[in-house]
Amino acid sequence: MTTSNTGTGAVDPEVRAELERLRDSIDNIDAAVVHMLAERFKATQQVGRLKALHQLPPADPAREARQIERLRSLAENAKLDPAFAEKFLNFIIAEVIRHHERIAEDTHNGHPAHDAGTGD
Amino acid sequence: MTTSNTGTGAVDPEVRAELERLRDSIDNIDAAVVHMLAERFKATQQVGRLKALHQLPPADPAREARQIERLRSLAENAKLDPAFAEKFLNFIIAEVIRHHERIAEDTHNGHPAHDAGTGD
Repeated sequence: MTTSNTGTGAVDPEVRAELERLRDSIDNIDAAVVHMLAERFKATQQVGRLKALHQLPPADPAREARQIERLRSLAENAKLDPAFAEKFLNFIIAEVIRHHERIAEDTHNGHPAHDAGTGD
Repeated sequence: MTTSNTGTGAVDPEVRAELERLRDSIDNIDAAVVHMLAERFKATQQVGRLKALHQLPPADPAREARQIERLRSLAENAKLDPAFAEKFLNFIIAEVIRHHERIAEDTHNGHPAHDAGTGD
Protein backbone atom coordinates (compact mmCIF):
# COMPACT_ATOMS: atom_id res chain seq x y z
CA MET A 1 0.00 0.00 0.00
CA THR A 2 1.33 3.39 -0.93
CA THR A 3 0.39 6.50 0.93
CA SER A 4 -2.27 8.74 -0.50
CA ASN A 5 -5.58 10.04 0.65
CA THR A 6 -9.00 8.48 1.06
CA GLY A 7 -10.83 11.82 0.79
CA THR A 8 -11.59 13.07 -2.72
CA GLY A 9 -10.41 16.59 -1.86
CA ALA A 10 -6.75 16.11 -0.89
CA VAL A 11 -5.43 13.47 -3.26
CA ASP A 12 -1.90 13.53 -4.65
CA PRO A 13 -2.24 15.92 -7.64
CA GLU A 14 -0.44 13.51 -9.97
CA VAL A 15 -2.81 10.69 -9.08
CA ARG A 16 -5.77 13.03 -9.45
CA ALA A 17 -4.51 14.15 -12.89
CA GLU A 18 -4.06 10.54 -14.02
CA LEU A 19 -7.59 9.70 -12.82
CA GLU A 20 -8.97 12.69 -14.70
CA ARG A 21 -7.12 11.67 -17.86
CA LEU A 22 -8.59 8.17 -17.69
CA ARG A 23 -12.08 9.48 -16.97
CA ASP A 24 -11.88 11.85 -19.95
CA SER A 25 -11.09 8.85 -22.16
CA ILE A 26 -13.98 6.90 -20.64
CA ASP A 27 -16.33 9.84 -21.31
CA ASN A 28 -15.14 10.10 -24.92
CA ILE A 29 -15.69 6.39 -25.45
CA ASP A 30 -19.16 6.56 -23.88
CA ALA A 31 -20.14 9.40 -26.21
CA ALA A 32 -18.91 7.38 -29.21
CA VAL A 33 -20.79 4.26 -28.10
CA VAL A 34 -24.05 6.17 -27.47
CA HIS A 35 -23.87 7.56 -31.01
CA MET A 36 -23.08 4.13 -32.47
CA LEU A 37 -26.04 2.66 -30.61
CA ALA A 38 -28.33 5.42 -31.89
CA GLU A 39 -27.24 4.47 -35.41
CA ARG A 40 -27.74 0.76 -34.63
CA PHE A 41 -31.33 1.29 -33.48
CA LYS A 42 -32.07 3.28 -36.63
CA ALA A 43 -31.01 0.21 -38.61
CA THR A 44 -32.95 -2.29 -36.47
CA GLN A 45 -36.06 -0.11 -36.68
CA GLN A 46 -35.81 -0.22 -40.46
CA VAL A 47 -35.44 -4.01 -40.20
CA GLY A 48 -38.53 -4.12 -37.97
CA ARG A 49 -40.58 -2.12 -40.45
CA LEU A 50 -39.34 -4.22 -43.37
CA LYS A 51 -40.26 -7.44 -41.57
CA ALA A 52 -43.69 -6.19 -40.52
CA LEU A 53 -44.44 -4.90 -44.02
CA HIS A 54 -43.35 -8.04 -45.86
CA GLN A 55 -44.57 -10.53 -43.27
CA LEU A 56 -41.12 -11.87 -42.63
CA PRO A 57 -40.68 -14.02 -39.52
CA PRO A 58 -39.64 -11.73 -36.65
CA ALA A 59 -36.99 -14.04 -35.18
CA ASP A 60 -34.08 -15.50 -37.08
CA PRO A 61 -32.25 -17.88 -34.72
CA ALA A 62 -29.58 -18.73 -37.31
CA ARG A 63 -28.73 -15.04 -37.79
CA GLU A 64 -28.62 -14.57 -34.01
CA ALA A 65 -26.30 -17.55 -33.52
CA ARG A 66 -23.94 -16.15 -36.18
CA GLN A 67 -23.99 -12.73 -34.48
CA ILE A 68 -23.09 -14.23 -31.10
CA GLU A 69 -20.26 -16.33 -32.55
CA ARG A 70 -18.85 -13.36 -34.45
CA LEU A 71 -19.00 -10.97 -31.50
CA ARG A 72 -17.38 -13.51 -29.17
CA SER A 73 -14.53 -13.94 -31.63
CA LEU A 74 -14.12 -10.16 -32.14
CA ALA A 75 -14.13 -9.72 -28.35
CA GLU A 76 -11.46 -12.35 -27.91
CA ASN A 77 -9.17 -10.57 -30.39
CA ALA A 78 -9.79 -7.26 -28.62
CA LYS A 79 -9.03 -8.87 -25.24
CA LEU A 80 -12.59 -8.34 -24.06
CA ASP A 81 -14.33 -11.13 -22.14
CA PRO A 82 -16.33 -13.05 -24.83
CA ALA A 83 -18.99 -13.88 -22.24
CA PHE A 84 -19.44 -10.16 -21.65
CA ALA A 85 -19.72 -9.50 -25.41
CA GLU A 86 -22.49 -12.11 -25.60
CA LYS A 87 -24.27 -10.58 -22.59
CA PHE A 88 -23.95 -7.18 -24.23
CA LEU A 89 -25.55 -8.42 -27.47
CA ASN A 90 -28.41 -9.96 -25.49
CA PHE A 91 -28.89 -6.67 -23.64
CA ILE A 92 -29.14 -4.80 -26.95
CA ILE A 93 -31.43 -7.42 -28.49
CA ALA A 94 -33.82 -7.09 -25.53
CA GLU A 95 -34.15 -3.40 -26.41
CA VAL A 96 -34.60 -4.20 -30.11
CA ILE A 97 -37.47 -6.53 -29.20
CA ARG A 98 -39.16 -3.71 -27.27
CA HIS A 99 -38.78 -1.46 -30.34
CA HIS A 100 -40.16 -4.12 -32.68
CA GLU A 101 -43.13 -4.69 -30.42
CA ARG A 102 -43.88 -0.98 -30.65
CA ILE A 103 -43.57 -1.10 -34.46
CA ALA A 104 -45.92 -4.11 -34.53
CA GLU A 105 -48.46 -2.22 -32.39
CA ASP A 106 -48.26 0.79 -34.71
CA THR A 107 -48.71 -1.46 -37.73
CA HIS A 108 -51.76 -3.03 -36.05
CA ASN A 109 -53.31 0.39 -35.71
CA GLY A 110 -53.08 1.02 -39.46
CA HIS A 111 -53.61 -2.45 -40.89
CA PRO A 112 -53.37 -5.89 -39.35
CA ALA A 113 -49.87 -7.32 -39.11
CA HIS A 114 -48.35 -10.17 -37.19
CA ASP A 115 -45.87 -9.53 -34.40
CA ALA A 116 -42.52 -8.13 -35.36
CA GLY A 117 -39.99 -9.56 -33.02
CA THR A 118 -36.43 -10.21 -32.11
CA GLY A 119 -32.92 -9.74 -33.06
CA ASP A 120 -30.95 -8.33 -35.91
CA MET B 1 -49.93 -5.36 -45.91
CA THR B 2 -47.93 -6.01 -49.02
CA THR B 3 -47.36 -9.45 -50.42
CA SER B 4 -44.13 -11.22 -49.68
CA ASN B 5 -43.14 -14.46 -48.12
CA THR B 6 -43.02 -15.71 -44.55
CA GLY B 7 -40.35 -18.32 -45.32
CA THR B 8 -36.76 -17.18 -45.23
CA GLY B 9 -35.97 -18.98 -48.49
CA ALA B 10 -38.29 -17.38 -51.04
CA VAL B 11 -38.39 -13.71 -50.13
CA ASP B 12 -38.60 -10.94 -52.69
CA PRO B 13 -34.93 -10.47 -53.72
CA GLU B 14 -35.14 -6.70 -53.29
CA VAL B 15 -36.45 -7.04 -49.75
CA ARG B 16 -33.80 -9.65 -49.00
CA ALA B 17 -31.08 -7.34 -50.36
CA GLU B 18 -32.33 -4.43 -48.25
CA LEU B 19 -32.39 -6.68 -45.16
CA GLU B 20 -28.82 -7.80 -45.87
CA ARG B 21 -27.69 -4.20 -46.32
CA LEU B 22 -29.15 -3.24 -42.95
CA ARG B 23 -27.68 -6.29 -41.24
CA ASP B 24 -24.23 -5.52 -42.65
CA SER B 25 -24.48 -2.04 -41.09
CA ILE B 26 -25.59 -3.57 -37.78
CA ASP B 27 -22.63 -5.97 -37.86
CA ASN B 28 -20.20 -3.11 -38.60
CA ILE B 29 -21.61 -1.08 -35.71
CA ASP B 30 -21.40 -4.07 -33.34
CA ALA B 31 -17.74 -4.60 -34.24
CA ALA B 32 -17.03 -0.91 -33.58
CA VAL B 33 -18.85 -0.99 -30.24
CA VAL B 34 -17.08 -4.17 -29.08
CA HIS B 35 -13.73 -2.52 -29.80
CA MET B 36 -14.77 0.69 -28.03
CA LEU B 37 -15.85 -1.33 -25.01
CA ALA B 38 -12.54 -3.22 -24.95
CA GLU B 39 -10.82 0.17 -24.82
CA ARG B 40 -13.22 1.39 -22.11
CA PHE B 41 -12.46 -1.59 -19.87
CA LYS B 42 -8.75 -0.99 -20.31
CA ALA B 43 -9.30 2.51 -18.93
CA THR B 44 -11.54 1.41 -16.04
CA GLN B 45 -9.05 -1.29 -15.09
CA GLN B 46 -6.36 1.36 -14.85
CA VAL B 47 -8.73 3.42 -12.70
CA GLY B 48 -9.34 0.37 -10.49
CA ARG B 49 -5.63 -0.22 -10.01
CA LEU B 50 -5.01 3.48 -9.30
CA LYS B 51 -7.77 3.55 -6.70
CA ALA B 52 -6.62 0.35 -5.01
CA LEU B 53 -3.01 1.53 -4.95
CA HIS B 54 -3.75 4.99 -3.56
CA GLN B 55 -6.59 3.97 -1.26
CA LEU B 56 -9.08 6.13 -3.09
CA PRO B 57 -12.75 5.50 -2.31
CA PRO B 58 -14.06 2.96 -4.84
CA ALA B 59 -17.39 4.68 -5.47
CA ASP B 60 -17.81 8.29 -6.55
CA PRO B 61 -21.56 9.01 -6.60
CA ALA B 62 -21.06 12.60 -7.82
CA ARG B 63 -19.04 11.37 -10.82
CA GLU B 64 -21.66 8.72 -11.56
CA ALA B 65 -24.50 11.26 -11.42
CA ARG B 66 -22.62 13.50 -13.86
CA GLN B 67 -22.03 10.54 -16.20
CA ILE B 68 -25.72 9.63 -16.21
CA GLU B 69 -26.83 13.22 -16.86
CA ARG B 70 -24.31 13.63 -19.67
CA LEU B 71 -25.19 10.34 -21.38
CA ARG B 72 -28.92 11.07 -21.17
CA SER B 73 -28.35 14.43 -22.82
CA LEU B 74 -26.09 12.96 -25.54
CA ALA B 75 -28.69 10.27 -26.16
CA GLU B 76 -31.45 12.82 -26.52
CA ASN B 77 -29.46 14.71 -29.15
CA ALA B 78 -28.77 11.46 -31.00
CA LYS B 79 -32.49 10.53 -30.84
CA LEU B 80 -31.76 7.56 -28.62
CA ASP B 81 -34.06 6.87 -25.67
CA PRO B 82 -32.33 8.57 -22.66
CA ALA B 83 -33.75 5.90 -20.35
CA PHE B 84 -32.00 3.27 -22.49
CA ALA B 85 -28.72 5.21 -22.36
CA GLU B 86 -28.95 5.23 -18.56
CA LYS B 87 -29.74 1.51 -18.47
CA PHE B 88 -26.77 0.92 -20.78
CA LEU B 89 -24.40 2.82 -18.47
CA ASN B 90 -25.66 0.82 -15.49
CA PHE B 91 -25.10 -2.40 -17.44
CA ILE B 92 -21.49 -1.39 -18.15
CA ILE B 93 -20.90 -0.22 -14.58
CA ALA B 94 -22.06 -3.61 -13.26
CA GLU B 95 -19.28 -5.20 -15.33
CA VAL B 96 -16.75 -2.60 -14.14
CA ILE B 97 -17.64 -3.48 -10.52
CA ARG B 98 -16.96 -7.14 -11.26
CA HIS B 99 -13.56 -6.17 -12.72
CA HIS B 100 -12.71 -3.95 -9.74
CA GLU B 101 -13.63 -6.72 -7.33
CA ARG B 102 -11.19 -8.96 -9.15
CA ILE B 103 -8.48 -6.26 -8.94
CA ALA B 104 -9.17 -5.85 -5.21
CA GLU B 105 -8.81 -9.62 -4.71
CA ASP B 106 -5.52 -9.63 -6.60
CA THR B 107 -4.29 -6.68 -4.53
CA HIS B 108 -5.29 -8.57 -1.36
CA ASN B 109 -3.10 -11.45 -2.43
CA GLY B 110 -0.03 -9.22 -2.67
CA HIS B 111 -0.62 -6.70 0.12
CA PRO B 112 -3.73 -5.75 2.06
CA ALA B 113 -6.03 -3.29 0.27
CA HIS B 114 -9.58 -2.23 0.78
CA ASP B 115 -12.25 -3.05 -1.76
CA ALA B 116 -12.00 -1.37 -5.09
CA GLY B 117 -15.48 -0.75 -6.29
CA THR B 118 -17.84 0.92 -8.67
CA GLY B 119 -18.18 3.16 -11.54
CA ASP B 120 -16.00 5.36 -13.65
